[in-house]
Amino acid sequence: MSDAPHLTLDLNTPGVTRGHLIVPGGADQRELSLPVFSLNKGQGPRLLITGGNHGNELEGPIVARRLIEWLPEAQTCGRVIVLPVLNPLAVQAWSRNTPLDGLNLNRVFPGRADGSVTERIADAVSRVLLPMADTIFDLHSFGPTWDFPPAATTHPIADQDLMAKTLGMAEAFKLPLTLIWDYSDTAGMFDILAQDQGKVFVCAEFGGGAVGMDSLAIYEAGVRNALIALGLVDGKGEYPMFRQERSGQTLETHPSDELKSPAQGIFEPRCSVLDEVKQGDLIGILHPMESSTAEPIDIRATGASIVIAIRSGAHVKASEAVALIARRMKTSTD
Amino acid sequence: MSDAPHLTLDLNTPGVTRGHLIVPGGADQRELSLPVFSLNKGQGPRLLITGGNHGNELEGPIVARRLIEWLPEAQTCGRVIVLPVLNPLAVQAWSRNTPLDGLNLNRVFPGRADGSVTERIADAVSRVLLPMADTIFDLHSFGPTWDFPPAATTHPIADQDLMAKTLGMAEAFKLPLTLIWDYSDTAGMFDILAQDQGKVFVCAEFGGGAVGMDSLAIYEAGVRNALIALGLVDGKGEYPMFRQERSGQTLETHPSDELKSPAQGIFEPRCSVLDEVKQGDLIGILHPMESSTAEPIDIRATGASIVIAIRSGAHVKASEAVALIARRMKTSTD
Repeated sequence: MSDAPHLTLDLNTPGVTRGHLIVPGGADQRELSLPVFSLNKGQGPRLLITGGNHGNELEGPIVARRLIEWLPEAQTCGRVIVLPVLNPLAVQAWSRNTPLDGLNLNRVFPGRADGSVTERIADAVSRVLLPMADTIFDLHSFGPTWDFPPAATTHPIADQDLMAKTLGMAEAFKLPLTLIWDYSDTAGMFDILAQDQGKVFVCAEFGGGAVGMDSLAIYEAGVRNALIALGLVDGKGEYPMFRQERSGQTLETHPSDELKSPAQGIFEPRCSVLDEVKQGDLIGILHPMESSTAEPIDIRATGASIVIAIRSGAHVKASEAVALIARRMKTSTD
Repeated sequence: MSDAPHLTLDLNTPGVTRGHLIVPGGADQRELSLPVFSLNKGQGPRLLITGGNHGNELEGPIVARRLIEWLPEAQTCGRVIVLPVLNPLAVQAWSRNTPLDGLNLNRVFPGRADGSVTERIADAVSRVLLPMADTIFDLHSFGPTWDFPPAATTHPIADQDLMAKTLGMAEAFKLPLTLIWDYSDTAGMFDILAQDQGKVFVCAEFGGGAVGMDSLAIYEAGVRNALIALGLVDGKGEYPMFRQERSGQTLETHPSDELKSPAQGIFEPRCSVLDEVKQGDLIGILHPMESSTAEPIDIRATGASIVIAIRSGAHVKASEAVALIARRMKTSTD
């Protein structure tokens, strides 16, 4: 039957199995077949790895495909399901949202079986794959107009036990930044749905701009570290090199930590991600480009903090975010 | 009168003068006012610096605005005209082409007075500003889905004397790469028009992806080096640091030097820009994402060469370019 989302592979088959997650067709789009890889080594943790949630964040799909090459050998127990591209329509268009219905997949979970194509993808993932996993890694990146360090992130979770488990899992990636992101626009996000079901969900972020060989190596090392921490792979996690350093820190950021542009123009970054700044330090400069007499406007830090995201030379409107700062929560142990 | 392109400032005024280049309105768009800065220190070289030719290449406008802050003090002679944003409609949309008419400004020179808005911008620049300069620096970058080293580039020029002068000017930027780019799609380009008039035209390239503080510093150093070489500014040019090195090389590339994707999928770079490769070396991997059984495809070097541009984790179609290679022409002297 083609009117319910389903898998063309049996996840109970031992070893590596390849197939598709079928997302039923609708008035807007015919049936989609999303490649799925099942790596079943029996008892143990049950992990779902997804990429391509947003179509212009392609580190995730690449790292997911690289995993499929070495994980079958390395995995010692448990079950891993890999879905490299959640939203092929957005990936093919190099677009954050699905061009067909304009929806952001990461705002429509758990989706709707009778909805538009983006909602049907969310519905298929929520009903068919999510129940098969206790832990989820969703591999994002920060998009092309921001600079952001390699990071494992979570939103704050009301359940303190799940929060501690999630934060521990995020820190196990051993990326330069572990971030607790207090974010206001979380309705319909994949992680909120999974956490409401008591699952551990870590969102990897990375970026922005060019997806280079070096950044992919860091990203993949982070995922490997997390697989080791979960007990799925033997080995010892190590901090990958980022900007000549091997270290990590755990920070928290709140909605009020966004620095906004004072006017329309081109934003020039004057600091780098993970720079520590104190009150009055220059974060960037806004160049109004429409007038020959308007002077550049300095954008300065309002307090001691660490810059975690900075807009990369984009044209921005007034009040658009140009930087995100964070504060130290605690030093990452280990 | 408003039906001819004109300046609202007098370029003969000594010192710094600010005003606008007026691009007449038409059926598609009302009159545009492009900020122009004139720095007149009398006799000497006449230089035009432009940025924002393509709307998603924003290093140029930022560096142009930074110049206006220090050049009035530093300039010892001659005339410099700075037009930070050639195409404000594209810049505001973060789009390579003008959204209104879909045209690439750098393919419509010398433009048309009775054309669409992109053609009218080209016409205004060609008729009002170009005659005022003997040397032109057009500040581009490589766009968001490619990695490319900081470079000063020129196309091959039939006039051998102008070619030598142009190459010398490009090398004076002292950027990591000076490139002679034999490119087939040059009709309507700004540099072709200027070179046909016997002018020295250097196109600065940089990219891609994030516009960071470090990359802006390299870009600005390159422009300053060129200003020193022109005799407009006192000082000594120095190679800026790029990837822990201070050096530069002059390479040439031809249309056949493009490596194309063997299939549709996501391209994973496996080398970095300026890497030397020999025949058979891995350049990147194409991951077909639409099928669970299609294996990744290696893309290898077809001969000894240097990688100068590499696609950064983009979704590509079959036969779309994923890398550009070049060969050494000579070692840059100096």
